[in-house]
Amino acid sequence: MKRPNYTMLCDYYELTMANGYFENGMSDKISYFDMFFRNIPDGGGFAIAAGLEQLCEYIENLKFTDKDIRFLRSKKIFSEKFLEYLKDFKFTGDVWSVPEGTPIFPGEPVVIVRAPAPQAQFLETFLLLTINHQTLIATKANRIVRAAQGRAVAEFGSRRAQGADAAILGARAAYIAGCAATACTQTDRDYGVPATGTMAHSWVQMFPTEYEAFKAYCEVYPDNATLLIDTYNVLKSGLPNAIKAYKEILAPRGIKKFGVRIDSGDIAYLTKKIRERFDEEGMDFAKIVVSNSLDEELIRDIIFQGAKIDSFGVGERLITAKSDPVFGGVYKLTAIEDEKGNVIPKIKISENPEKITTPSFKKIYRIFEKESGQAYADYITMHDEKPDFTKPLELFDPKAPWKRSVQEDYKAVELLRPIFKNGKRVYDLPSLEEIRKYCAEQIDLLWDTVKRFDYPHEYYVDLSQKLWDLKNDMLRNQK
Amino acid sequence: MKRPNYTMLCDYYELTMANGYFENGMSDKISYFDMFFRNIPDGGGFAIAAGLEQLCEYIENLKFTDKDIRFLRSKKIFSEKFLEYLKDFKFTGDVWSVPEGTPIFPGEPVVIVRAPAPQAQFLETFLLLTINHQTLIATKANRIVRAAQGRAVAEFGSRRAQGADAAILGARAAYIAGCAATACTQTDRDYGVPATGTMAHSWVQMFPTEYEAFKAYCEVYPDNATLLIDTYNVLKSGLPNAIKAYKEILAPRGIKKFGVRIDSGDIAYLTKKIRERFDEEGMDFAKIVVSNSLDEELIRDIIFQGAKIDSFGVGERLITAKSDPVFGGVYKLTAIEDEKGNVIPKIKISENPEKITTPSFKKIYRIFEKESGQAYADYITMHDEKPDFTKPLELFDPKAPWKRSVQEDYKAVELLRPIFKNGKRVYDLPSLEEIRKYCAEQIDLLWDTVKRFDYPHEYYVDLSQKLWDLKNDMLRNQK
Repeated sequence: MKRPNYTMLCDYYELTMANGYFENGMSDKISYFDMFFRNIPDGGGFAIAAGLEQLCEYIENLKFTDKDIRFLRSKKIFSEKFLEYLKDFKFTGDVWSVPEGTPIFPGEPVVIVRAPAPQAQFLETFLLLTINHQTLIATKANRIVRAAQGRAVAEFGSRRAQGADAAILGARAAYIAGCAATACTQTDRDYGVPATGTMAHSWVQMFPTEYEAFKAYCEVYPDNATLLIDTYNVLKSGLPNAIKAYKEILAPRGIKKFGVRIDSGDIAYLTKKIRERFDEEGMDFAKIVVSNSLDEELIRDIIFQGAKIDSFGVGERLITAKSDPVFGGVYKLTAIEDEKGNVIPKIKISENPEKITTPSFKKIYRIFEKESGQAYADYITMHDEKPDFTKPLELFDPKAPWKRSVQEDYKAVELLRPIFKNGKRVYDLPSLEEIRKYCAEQIDLLWDTVKRFDYPHEYYVDLSQKLWDLKNDMLRNQK
Repeated sequence: MKRPNYTMLCDYYELTMANGYFENGMSDKISYFDMFFRNIPDGGGFAIAAGLEQLCEYIENLKFTDKDIRFLRSKKIFSEKFLEYLKDFKFTGDVWSVPEGTPIFPGEPVVIVRAPAPQAQFLETFLLLTINHQTLIATKANRIVRAAQGRAVAEFGSRRAQGADAAILGARAAYIAGCAATACTQTDRDYGVPATGTMAHSWVQMFPTEYEAFKAYCEVYPDNATLLIDTYNVLKSGLPNAIKAYKEILAPRGIKKFGVRIDSGDIAYLTKKIRERFDEEGMDFAKIVVSNSLDEELIRDIIFQGAKIDSFGVGERLITAKSDPVFGGVYKLTAIEDEKGNVIPKIKISENPEKITTPSFKKIYRIFEKESGQAYADYITMHDEKPDFTKPLELFDPKAPWKRSVQEDYKAVELLRPIFKNGKRVYDLPSLEEIRKYCAEQIDLLWDTVKRFDYPHEYYVDLSQKLWDLKNDMLRNQK
C-alpha cells in the first residue's frame, strides 16, 4: 500500500449517521448509493474518470485504530456498542465502477456501492474526495493536452497544488489524461510518471554570469540540457549565452539533444525570434519549451499566433484546474433492500429540480454506432433489466422524452465493472500505462463535436423506458 | 510527527540543480531565498500566512530513504558522490518566518531561508506548496467569516477538496482564519478543530418517512439534533415534520438545543419563512443552519436580503478557494555569501517587470500608529540595517518613490521570527488556538479600508532608502 490509512478522513456526519443506523437496528440494512455528477467543468463535453485505484486502497486500508476509537469516545455522543462495532469495522459490500480513464457524462453513475447502511454511508466522504479530485484534474489536463495539438505537455504545478496529495495524485491524473511527464519526483517514484526538469532562475543567479551558469549545466548534464533563458533578457542575453554554451560544450561532442525554456514575456513573439535564431545557427534540432501560467486558452491562442513551441510546462492552472476548480460529484442513496432482498428504490426530490436523483440500482451501456465505431449515447437501465440489443434501440432524452430516435446498427458495451464483491476486491488494478492508453482510445471514440472546447454537443445520457417510468411514478406519488 | 516523510515531494529540478551545485563545488555555498507573493487573491486587501507548522515538520522529517536513493540512481543522471551525499542529507541552515495567522502583503518576504545552496534550493517545492496552500485557504476562509458578520461558519468541504491534504489541512487553515468548526473528523483528531455534523439526505431517505427519520435522530441525539429539512419539500414537509419531532421527543425533556438545516432552494425566502414558523410555535431558540455552495458574495447578499440564519456550513467554495484557487507565492534567490561571509545580493530581472525581485537578506517591521494602535505600513530593510525608530520615519511607495510621508508617533514591530538556526528548530510551535487568537488580534489591527472586500486600500509595503538604492543600482548596472 502506497498511502496511509485515511479512515478518519470522513465527514463527522458519516459517523453520527452510522451510529444512528446502528442504534436503530439498521446495521445490516442493505443500501445502494450512486456516485454521479451534474456538470462538466469548463463547459466541456465530457469528463474523465480517475481516482479508482486510490478508492480501492482506501477501502482495503479501512481500519479504526485504538486511538481513533478513544478519540471518538471523547466526543461523548457515540454508544459503547457502536464503538465496539467500529473496532472490527471493515467493508463487506460490493462496488461497481467505470474504469479509470473512461470518458463520463452528467447524470450517470460512475461508482455504485451496495453495502450495509453504516458501511455504504461511511464511504461517502473519501470516495467523493478522491474521485472528484482526480477526475477534475484528468478532465482539465486533457483539455490542455488537446489544445497543445500533439506537442508534449509536462505537469509542473506541485508548488501551487492544494496540498501534498493534490501535487502527487494530481500529477497521476494528468498523466492518465495524456500529459507526458511531471515535475513531481514522488509521482515518478510511486506511480512511474516520468519526472522531468532542469533548472530554475536561481541556478542562473547562483553563478557569476549567465553564461557560466549555462556552461556549468551543460558540463554536468550534456545529454539533458534545457537552459532557462529569461533570467535577465531572453533575446539579448539568455539566447546568445545558451547558443554559445551549446557550441562550446555540446556541439564538439556531437550532441543534438538541446533546448531552451522561457517562463515569462510574450511567448508568441519570443519563440518565433528564438526559432529564427536557431535556424540561422543551423540548430534546427534545438527544442523550445515554454511555461508561465499556461492553460488551454492561452495555448490555443499562442499556437494560433504561430508561436514556435516544441513542448509545454503547465503548472498552477492545471494542478488546481484554476478556471473551474471543483468537480461536483455527489453520492446519493438510490435504493434499499427489504428483508427478502427486494430492491426498494429511493428518490431525493430537493428544492432545486436539477438536484432530483434517479432512483434504483442501475447498469450503464455505452452505445457505439457499428459503422463508425463512435460512441453515440449512454443508456442507463435498471440492474435487472435484460435489454435486447439485437433489436433496434429506441432512445429518448430524459429532459425531452418526446424526442425519440431509433438506433439500428449498434454495439452496446457495459461500462460499470465489478470492483469489490462481499468486501473483497475482484478487479485487477490496471497499470498506469494501461489506464493512460485506454483513456486515449476511449476519447478517440467520441465524436469531435463532443470534444469542442466551448459549446460542445451534449452527449446523450438516456434512461431506459422502465427506469424513466419508475422515476416519474415516484415523483408523482411523492407526498 | 503527524505527517509522512515528504522528502521526495520535490520538483525534479531541485535535484538536478542540487546535484549540479554539488558537482560544481558549491555544496557549501551559503545562499538566501525569500518566499513572497505578488497578488492578493480575490482582489482583497491582505492575505493570512499559514502552513509554517507543516513546513517545520517537513524540514525535521527530511530524509532520503534507501528506496529513494535507488530510485534516483535508476534515473542515471546523478553522480554516485551526490547520491552518497543525499544519504545523510539534512537541513543545517536557518529559517525565518512570520508566525502563522499574520496578515501579509505582496512583495514582503514571508519566509527566508539561509543555507548551503543544495539545501536551500531543495526546500523550494514543499515550502511553497504548504505555505501557498494553507495561506490560500486561510485568506479565503477569513473573507467568508467576515461576510458572515459574527455568525458561525463551519468548514464542510472535504468531499470537494483537491485530495486528502487539501481536506485535512484546509480545515486547519480555515480554523486559523476564524471558522468555528469543520466536518472533517481527521482534522479534529489531529489538530483539535471541533468536528461537527448531523445528517445527510440519505438518513432521511433511509427511513419509511421523513418524520420517522427525524424522530429516530432526536431519539439517538437528543442534545445534538439539527435536522436536514430539504429532502422533499422544506415548507410543506421538512419543517412541519421537524417541529413535530421536536415537540414529541425533545420538548417533553425540556431540551432547547435544536435546529434545522437547508441545503437547497432560495435561502433568503425559506429562512424567513422558517423563522416565522418557529416564532409562531414559540421556538425562538431553534437555530437555522444553511449550506449549498456558499461563499462570501452569496453570504453578504442573503444577509443583505434579510435572511434569518444562525450559522453557515461552507463547502467547496472555501476548501478550494474556488473564485481564485491559486496562491502565487514564489521562492527566489536574493543573495549568496562569499568565502569571507560577505552577503552578495542577487537580483532576477525577468521579461515581466512585476517579476523583478528585491535583492538581499532582509528584515520586515510592521509600523503601528501609536495613537490608534492600527497598522500603517510594513517597512523592509537590509538585515544589517539598524533603523533608529526613536526618530520620525520617512516612508515612500517603491512604485512611486517621489510620494513620501513621515510617521512621527509610531511603534515598529519586527515580523520575521527565527524558526531554525543551524538546522535546529528554535521556535516553539504555538497551539492552533493560540494561532487562531493571534490571527484575529492582528486582523483587528488593520484599518477597515484594508478589509474591504472589493477595491480595498492598498496597504503600504515600503523599502528602506538603503534597500531601494541597492535594488535600483543593481537594475541599472545589469548588463
